[in-house]
Amino acid sequence: MALIVHKYGGTSMGSTERIKNVAARVAKWHDAGHRVVVVPSAMSGETNRLIGLAKEIMSQPDPRELDMIASTGEQVSVGLLAMALLARGKDAVSYTGWQVGIKTDSAFTKARIQSIDDSRVRADLDAGKIVIITGFQGVDDEGNISTLGRGGSDTSAVAIAAALKADECLIYTDVDGVYTTDPRVVSEARRLHQITFEEMLELASLGSKVLQTRSVEFAGNYRVPTRVLSSLTDPLMPLEEEANSGTLISFEEESNMEQAVISGIAFHRDEAKITVLGVPDKPGVAYHILGPISEANIEVDMIIQNQSVDGKTDFTFTVSRNDYQRAMGVLEGVKAEIGAAKILGDAKVSKVSAVGVGMRSHVGVASQMFRTLSEEGINIMMISTSEIKISVLIDEKYMELAVRALHKAFNLEQA
Amino acid sequence: MALIVHKYGGTSMGSTERIKNVAARVAKWHDAGHRVVVVPSAMSGETNRLIGLAKEIMSQPDPRELDMIASTGEQVSVGLLAMALLARGKDAVSYTGWQVGIKTDSAFTKARIQSIDDSRVRADLDAGKIVIITGFQGVDDEGNISTLGRGGSDTSAVAIAAALKADECLIYTDVDGVYTTDPRVVSEARRLHQITFEEMLELASLGSKVLQTRSVEFAGNYRVPTRVLSSLTDPLMPLEEEANSGTLISFEEESNMEQAVISGIAFHRDEAKITVLGVPDKPGVAYHILGPISEANIEVDMIIQNQSVDGKTDFTFTVSRNDYQRAMGVLEGVKAEIGAAKILGDAKVSKVSAVGVGMRSHVGVASQMFRTLSEEGINIMMISTSEIKISVLIDEKYMELAVRALHKAFNLEQA
Repeated sequence: MALIVHKYGGTSMGSTERIKNVAARVAKWHDAGHRVVVVPSAMSGETNRLIGLAKEIMSQPDPRELDMIASTGEQVSVGLLAMALLARGKDAVSYTGWQVGIKTDSAFTKARIQSIDDSRVRADLDAGKIVIITGFQGVDDEGNISTLGRGGSDTSAVAIAAALKADECLIYTDVDGVYTTDPRVVSEARRLHQITFEEMLELASLGSKVLQTRSVEFAGNYRVPTRVLSSLTDPLMPLEEEANSGTLISFEEESNMEQAVISGIAFHRDEAKITVLGVPDKPGVAYHILGPISEANIEVDMIIQNQSVDGKTDFTFTVSRNDYQRAMGVLEGVKAEIGAAKILGDAKVSKVSAVGVGMRSHVGVASQMFRTLSEEGINIMMISTSEIKISVLIDEKYMELAVRALHKAFNLEQA
Repeated sequence: MALIVHKYGGTSMGSTERIKNVAARVAKWHDAGHRVVVVPSAMSGETNRLIGLAKEIMSQPDPRELDMIASTGEQVSVGLLAMALLARGKDAVSYTGWQVGIKTDSAFTKARIQSIDDSRVRADLDAGKIVIITGFQGVDDEGNISTLGRGGSDTSAVAIAAALKADECLIYTDVDGVYTTDPRVVSEARRLHQITFEEMLELASLGSKVLQTRSVEFAGNYRVPTRVLSSLTDPLMPLEEEANSGTLISFEEESNMEQAVISGIAFHRDEAKITVLGVPDKPGVAYHILGPISEANIEVDMIIQNQSVDGKTDFTFTVSRNDYQRAMGVLEGVKAEIGAAKILGDAKVSKVSAVGVGMRSHVGVASQMFRTLSEEGINIMMISTSEIKISVLIDEKYMELAVRALHKAFNLEQA
């Protein structure tokens, strides 16, 4: 029988009634003879409540102390879920991250897992127990509690699955899988039965926020078969049916050979574009512009530098719209130093991307994409490409139109 | 300068505003040059909320999992208090029980502290930090989280003070010290400036519930000077005044030599009396009666066995009124087995005790007590004595009268 890791989000753990439902589902898998490890999130709202308390005391909470506080939400969840299983007559035991040696670095509130000691969990599984482990957290070398940041429980689940060499990691969530695009934008959007890690990475980071990006990287690096599926189904639905539902994120590219060239259309509505005009075109210009941005902890996405004219060049990049005002402020501060003539900004832009491993072996995807947008009269402001993705920056008001047109142009409504 | 341990109860930690007040008080002590360790309880209501969640899932929660859950209340408190101190510019750091090696046995929900590793705390104090440690909890040899039971944070504070050889352990609470009796019963009740551990033990376990009994035992065994004082005063009141407020529980008996013979009148309203009539007077009878009571986890207080008549004897004991029905049920179940003629009960009795180390060297305390009660027409049902205490069981309706009369008879209103 298989070793399976289940992960449940905060909504699934949102009340004691729902926790009992989770226990019923977990028990079903254990009854079928599988070895089961469960990683639940904090009850919905709990992490926000805790962070709210912290902010009442310190507007910028101390990261180490914030982790001390925020990590308790998951600790309560694991205890409650263990009890719900014990109440069903199942042998279950809960552990915090430090109790099962989930070692991280000391980057509090955004720590990274370094290693997991699986001995205690293996011993419990050997004894027939269901093991429940806190997501979102670990412990650093000095024994300080650390958290992985928002959505970190996905990463915990995949990391634990990797350490245990689990047969599959099931991420139960409030969507029933990964879609060709957001069904709220395109009603014909279709659930994908399978997707590669690389595609998932592009889709996740671009807005189909089903799984935390880092968890997908982890799954890819450690080759953990990971499935995203719905926690809203009847917990007692037939196991075989449940086991094949959702979307499997696979690491076998060949299995996708017969699939479409493009797997999905991702988008990111809240982008902002900043252009630095007339900077001297000499070595280090990019660094002098982006260095201060990076020091302000602002993430930059697309970057373009134009051909130099008369020793001057223009430099354009995008940031998340939340960071737009701050980024503009930073640049105004260093404008004189970098010798820029002018700084322009546009906070009403969106990014639309076509994603698919199939485009590696198919030419013409880019031209198909540009033609489609052109036919709809949509102007392209910036373009960036990777091996399996083409992204364009467009005016925000055309975003839905662009997504619908591309979804149709690449025949994504058809399986 | 001194090493001081502060302990704050749930009411003092009841909101982020109150936590800031605690921080102001702690900072005052640190500013005066003292080394300060703080042990805060969970925010008021939090432990009950957590236990309530557990009971929604399991009416008799699994003890290990309950401790996993219940211990989080204090973890949140230490993080918030550390932040409140950091926000004031103080260097502070919080720890859970396991992080500073508070080792306990594995008796979950009522664990006992076995050892504390003080090295980490000492290093932080040497570095000028204020150290904040979770009360109520520790970790067993297998790394499971354990809690000490209700009021356990008092014990944690005293145990930590003992491990650090602190100069004084200050228990901040919502009363301003230990009184000669409950001021709600006797308006002339007077605050004691000093009391011995033995007296405190008798007063605490008899109803003046200022400190958890076990914490007083700990303080006595390890000779930790412990002071009970009010957390409701202005946090910025002069330190010298605060340091001399409340009641000091001392281990120097001689310092009490000049004090009154009796230190206080304790009482326990909610007692119940059970009499087993006509049991055969043979070896083992007490065990056969009290064995089943003890197995049902019911605590027995006073015990009397009468002179045997015709090979039969009567056996009387008291239990807490909460346990009365259960104790009667247990005895009815074993009545035939123990050969009892009849079982009688009275759930409307109360215990009143005169307590004082001075009575060791003074005869006549008992007769003074009995005469006073007799003059008030109060019948004594049972009597029990120890070196520093005389307790009587009386009809509940005379309890207040007895306490007032004894308080006056022993001149307790006069300092």
